[in-house]
Order: sequence, then structure tokens, then C-alpha cells
Amino acid sequence: MELTRRQETILEIVKRSGPITGDQIAERLSLTRATLRPDLAILTMSGLLEARPRVGYYYSGRSPNRVVAEKLCSVKVGTIISIPAVVTENCSVYDAVVAMFIKDVGTLFVVKEVGLLEGVLSRKDLLKTTLGGHDIHQLPVGVIMTRMPNVIYTTSDETVWSAAKKLITHQVDALPVVRSATQADGGEGLEVIGRLSKTNITRLFVELGEGQ
Amino acid sequence: MELTRRQETILEIVKRSGPITGDQIAERLSLTRATLRPDLAILTMSGLLEARPRVGYYYSGRSPNRVVAEKLCSVKVGTIISIPAVVTENCSVYDAVVAMFIKDVGTLFVVKEVGLLEGVLSRKDLLKTTLGGHDIHQLPVGVIMTRMPNVIYTTSDETVWSAAKKLITHQVDALPVVRSATQADGGEGLEVIGRLSKTNITRLFVELGEGQ
Repeated sequence: MELTRRQETILEIVKRSGPITGDQIAERLSLTRATLRPDLAILTMSGLLEARPRVGYYYSGRSPNRVVAEKLCSVKVGTIISIPAVVTENCSVYDAVVAMFIKDVGTLFVVKEVGLLEGVLSRKDLLKTTLGGHDIHQLPVGVIMTRMPNVIYTTSDETVWSAAKKLITHQVDALPVVRSATQADGGEGLEVIGRLSKTNITRLFVELGEGQ
Repeated sequence: MELTRRQETILEIVKRSGPITGDQIAERLSLTRATLRPDLAILTMSGLLEARPRVGYYYSGRSPNRVVAEKLCSVKVGTIISIPAVVTENCSVYDAVVAMFIKDVGTLFVVKEVGLLEGVLSRKDLLKTTLGGHDIHQLPVGVIMTRMPNVIYTTSDETVWSAAKKLITHQVDALPVVRSATQADGGEGLEVIGRLSKTNITRLFVELGEGQ
């Protein structure tokens, strides 16, 4: 939404001097209140200004990018996730690296045989280990992975925006997408149902930019 | 941007019957022209309707998603890039892995001593090599890197959207940001001045979602 120069000026006046009445704004601009009415209506309805009876107009603190922000925050994780690539805890580091190449992913999730989340393996976890002079054919990934409860995860219902914030804050490339699950023995856990990576976010960015 | 029910109705009327004058719209809704003025102004300014003098309002064909798309396509690479992490071609694979950890990046750029782009090293390039039983203390990265002219790159002036599309299409995690440079000996090349990764895109996504 592009503002006219007059609307930008009104916004500036209200930012600096709000709360301020419509008559006071009109006086500063040497215009009549009636002339300003459509501009004030637009600024109020777009959420940039708020109006309170007997007080006047004040700045809402919302930027014109509100439209963009609302759209970006409306997409749910469940709509853009990929298939998770998983290995079990006793898988060797060597086999995990091979799985990473075969499945063409940058992050592997480590699960119990019933599919419950136990840990996460990044490319750098594996790189550090292959460099370290270990016998990677014998070393199980359980020894080097990031283990629950230290794994950052997301759910299908979370917004992509909120999940993206986790990726940045915790400096990880991908999150397992999980749901609560009860095992046959009555134990509780998190079942891995998907993968959300920076690639998914980048692809969404490209799609939204196409106006799709 | 959320439209009010009345604005939605106006949009529907113009979609079906446009071009149509403000008076005609007012008549259909049994409202005065003055009452509708702010609504019509908002619909016009947000790009959903267009107005032509002596013709009336018509539907622009732009969806609210168009507004989002225009914003996403307006950001330039130069505004969000990171510092590049570089090594030279005769650096050993071992030293490159160490540099990747120390500089906390996922992609290294390989440059000639004068800073001109020669190649790119990903985590997976290095992982594949450490797994392969090579002497990584002796093997130079020049042997395993993706070499020019096969390196995908971007410039400060390119839109982030277009660069993001390259990341997805070519399945890479980061692009070197370059500019043309002439060497002392008169040779031409591409000087590496930055790094654009999926992390930069994800961070931008988070910032735009905050309405910043």
C-alpha cells in the first residue's frame, strides 16, 4: 500500500505529536478538516493510526508492511514440510553419512524403532566426527547426536514464521516436525512426521514472491 | 490487510460490473457516495481496484498476495548479505574443515590470492572427502571444490527473490556475492564481496513477518 505525500506528512505529525485531534492536524497543514477526512480514514482503516473519541489520533506502531507480515505469519508448518530422513541410534556414523547422501538431506533425525524422536544429526556433527580419527564404521550415532530433551522441534500447527524464528535463534538448519504419541507400553513420546528446513523457508519465500 | 465486509462487497460488485462509477456503486449499496469514499480510496490505494477518470472503477486483477509478492521482490541482496569466509586453492581439506568451524559457516569460497573467485566448498563436499580415506592433511581443496565457471553466484543489485530462486534451482546453501574486478596484470575476474545463504533468507523472512 503506497501512501500519498500528504498521508506521509500526517503520519509524521501524529508520530511526533500524537495524540492530536483532526482539527489540530488540519491547522498545521493549513487545510480544512473536511479535506483531511479521507486521508485520516485511510490511515485509520489501514491500521497505521488509531483514533480515540475525545482524545484524538495516535500512532499505532504498525508499519505499512503489516499486510506482508500478516501473510507471512498465516502459513502453517504442515503445509510446506518435507519427508523426514531417519536413522536409529545404533546406526554407525559411516552409515549415517551414506544415508545423508542417499536421502539428499542436510539433517538426519534419530528415532527409536517405534519412530519416536531421540536425537538430531547435522552435517557438522558428522564432519567433526569423520575428522576426529574415530573408527566411524563402529561408532554409533547415539554417541555424537544432539539428544532429547535438547532437540528443538516444531508441529504442523505452528506458523512457519515462528518455526523460522527457532531455526535462527537456535542456529540449526532443520527442525523435526512431531506429534505426541503413546507407545504400546504406555510410554509417551514425540513421533517424527516431517522435516522443516531453511530450504523449505527459502522455497516458500520464492513462491510467495511469485504471488502464488 | 483485512478488508471489511463492505469493502469485500464493493470488490465483488466491481469484479462483476466494472468499469462502474462510484455513484453507481453507492446506489447499489443504498449508501451515499461520501460514505463510500474512504472504502474506495483504500481499495484503490492497496492496488485491488483501479480508477480511471470519466470511466469509473475497475478490478486490477491484483490479489492481496500481489502486494506481498511486490514487497518480497523489492529487497536487494546487498542489504542482507554476510561476510564471506574464504580459503585459497592450496589449503588442505583438513584446514578447510577447521576454517568452516572457526568461521561458523556452511559454505567456504575458494579465491586466488587477489580475492578473485575460483570455487566453492560445501559441507557435503568436505564430508564426502573425509569419508573417502584420503590424506586430508595433504589433499588441497582445489581438487574437490566446485570450480568456476560452474559456480552459481549473485550480485548486490540482484533481488533476494531472484537469488533465492538460484539457491533452490541449483540446490546450493549459499551463493558468493561478487563484483567484476580487473587484476593488475589486466585479467578479468569476479571479486568475492559477500555471502548470501538460506540463513539470510530465513532471517529476512522472520524480519518481514515482524513487520520491520
